[in-house]
Amino acid sequence: MKEITIVRTSNPKKKPDYSNLGFGKYYTDHMFLMDYSPDLGWHDPRIVPYGPISLDPAAMVLHYAQTTFEGMKAYRTGDGRTLLFRPWDNFRRLNSSDNRLCIPQIDVDFAVEAVKTLLRVDMDWMPTEVGTSMYIRPFVIATEPHLGVRASNSYLFAIILSPVAAYYPEGMAPVRIYVEDEDVRAVRGGTGEVKAGGNYAATIRAQNKAAEKGYTQVLWLDGVHRKYIEEVGTMNVFFLIDDTVVTPALTGSILPGITRMSCLEMLRSWSIPCEERLISVDEVKTALRNGRIREAFGTGTAAVISPIGHLAFGEETYEINNGSIGPVSQRLYDELTGIQWGRLPDKYGWTTEV
Amino acid sequence: MKEITIVRTSNPKKKPDYSNLGFGKYYTDHMFLMDYSPDLGWHDPRIVPYGPISLDPAAMVLHYAQTTFEGMKAYRTGDGRTLLFRPWDNFRRLNSSDNRLCIPQIDVDFAVEAVKTLLRVDMDWMPTEVGTSMYIRPFVIATEPHLGVRASNSYLFAIILSPVAAYYPEGMAPVRIYVEDEDVRAVRGGTGEVKAGGNYAATIRAQNKAAEKGYTQVLWLDGVHRKYIEEVGTMNVFFLIDDTVVTPALTGSILPGITRMSCLEMLRSWSIPCEERLISVDEVKTALRNGRIREAFGTGTAAVISPIGHLAFGEETYEINNGSIGPVSQRLYDELTGIQWGRLPDKYGWTTEV
Repeated sequence: MKEITIVRTSNPKKKPDYSNLGFGKYYTDHMFLMDYSPDLGWHDPRIVPYGPISLDPAAMVLHYAQTTFEGMKAYRTGDGRTLLFRPWDNFRRLNSSDNRLCIPQIDVDFAVEAVKTLLRVDMDWMPTEVGTSMYIRPFVIATEPHLGVRASNSYLFAIILSPVAAYYPEGMAPVRIYVEDEDVRAVRGGTGEVKAGGNYAATIRAQNKAAEKGYTQVLWLDGVHRKYIEEVGTMNVFFLIDDTVVTPALTGSILPGITRMSCLEMLRSWSIPCEERLISVDEVKTALRNGRIREAFGTGTAAVISPIGHLAFGEETYEINNGSIGPVSQRLYDELTGIQWGRLPDKYGWTTEV
Repeated sequence: MKEITIVRTSNPKKKPDYSNLGFGKYYTDHMFLMDYSPDLGWHDPRIVPYGPISLDPAAMVLHYAQTTFEGMKAYRTGDGRTLLFRPWDNFRRLNSSDNRLCIPQIDVDFAVEAVKTLLRVDMDWMPTEVGTSMYIRPFVIATEPHLGVRASNSYLFAIILSPVAAYYPEGMAPVRIYVEDEDVRAVRGGTGEVKAGGNYAATIRAQNKAAEKGYTQVLWLDGVHRKYIEEVGTMNVFFLIDDTVVTPALTGSILPGITRMSCLEMLRSWSIPCEERLISVDEVKTALRNGRIREAFGTGTAAVISPIGHLAFGEETYEINNGSIGPVSQRLYDELTGIQWGRLPDKYGWTTEV
């Protein structure tokens, strides 16, 4: 395995107020970088002081968005250990994203080691208060200065760290969701099933519209029929219909979330019936009217579980579980966060110590 | 109008070999930059020596691809003038792109003035050989360091210049096109009708596959039905069926090309019937079999007119016009390039002098 060189900062930053971290606002003292060129492959892995990246104005990432990323977290346990949650799955997904965007593959074990090494260098930044964590952002950008549309010949792989607040400082809270019927996030054959930068730029307009109407996030419908439910905001979505948990099948435009996968594994281990299949807006509306939707929630790295309290289709708004958190949502949240923060035994083997 | 400050380089670069420019490989000595912040709006327009852009590793463009661009050219006439072709239309389209991606609007007249000023500063870079031109790349990137998915609060608007070779050094040449049936470029409700970076990253894989099979470009089908023709490579596409020129209607996932629009205006002024409508693969295949497709071509800033000599659907390949350039393609090319290089009178009022 390549050796990671480490250059420590001589000028550590002042730590932010850890009681008011927000999300993605503060960055630690160091970052991990590694370059790619056709002759050397991935080379020069290094940890250096956090600072600006210098790009040629013609660098392809700035024009053609050849960029992919991942998001994961490190958690401080009560007994002082630091845990990562399924980081190999994140880097396998990064390779899947890179494959779609014609970016060279990265060694998964090496990438996990890079995250651990960076965390150790910046361990004094690790948040310790209940619910806080270290958000980890690996990303790859096309750096070659060239204006023809094709795959870049050179890339930068970077990892930055951001201490983040508890997502629910006052406990998990249900959100209000608006079903978006104009903009679409992705379509099969596009890049919706990978973490490509372009997927996210496309969602901002609908998100702004939802916020103006007083909603927290949008529910995305499929781009072909505009009737099948895909994701909620930047999360996967689940419904408890009668006694069965249902989530959209991965049909090519839905991100295969690692929290999604973990929830399915837990539900199955609890013998709660689960279905991955197409779910139409009409099915959900009818089930809501008949009182058969007992819970609905989003799943993702940031919030873990985000219960949906209200779901609006145009002017029609439905309340789910009286706008409060249901028992399945709560159980998934408690079990997952229990494993992540080391409060519960990790019987699935999902965590790894830094 | 804001004043553009100019800082000239003290260290001009060596000019490249003008007989071997290629496309988008060389950049001039200067670039135009302008910043956006919520309190100041667009401010500090400046021309400075061409050089690296410094970005925080958390700059939103590097993660969420909030980036838009334009492409246009400056042409040197035989009598020593320098012409721009419909630059106002490019910047109107940039504003349309920016609107879709929630980026603040830019004053169109000011942007055209910025291009002209930059061209004047780097006029010694202007290529003069037949068919060469100065490619102009305006682009906007989200610069705020923030990892939550939302619109950035700060942006950089930049313009860079690249002297480029004649697209057809030995005269216009028909290309071989492959109909892509897996990947899709865009879908209505997405960002296909604007020049968002993410559209381009999504196309690289199919382009590579086409190249491996011996084709120049792919023909894109719509993302919903996968049967209507949308674009060819990064160009709009036209067919001469019997005596009518047909091009896909702008249904929401097709870029409204400025060369496309100019071709339609010329064809109508020549009283050649034109239709903007849905065109299915089946219609094209049937018309090819019946010998009714007399010409097919792509339109775009780079090649102007790119005749299609062969069109392949899976293993079925059709030759169009015996694989050679048809009279309508040739006439459009001659008229457009005649106006652009000042060889023909600009009766449409499309050009503006620098």
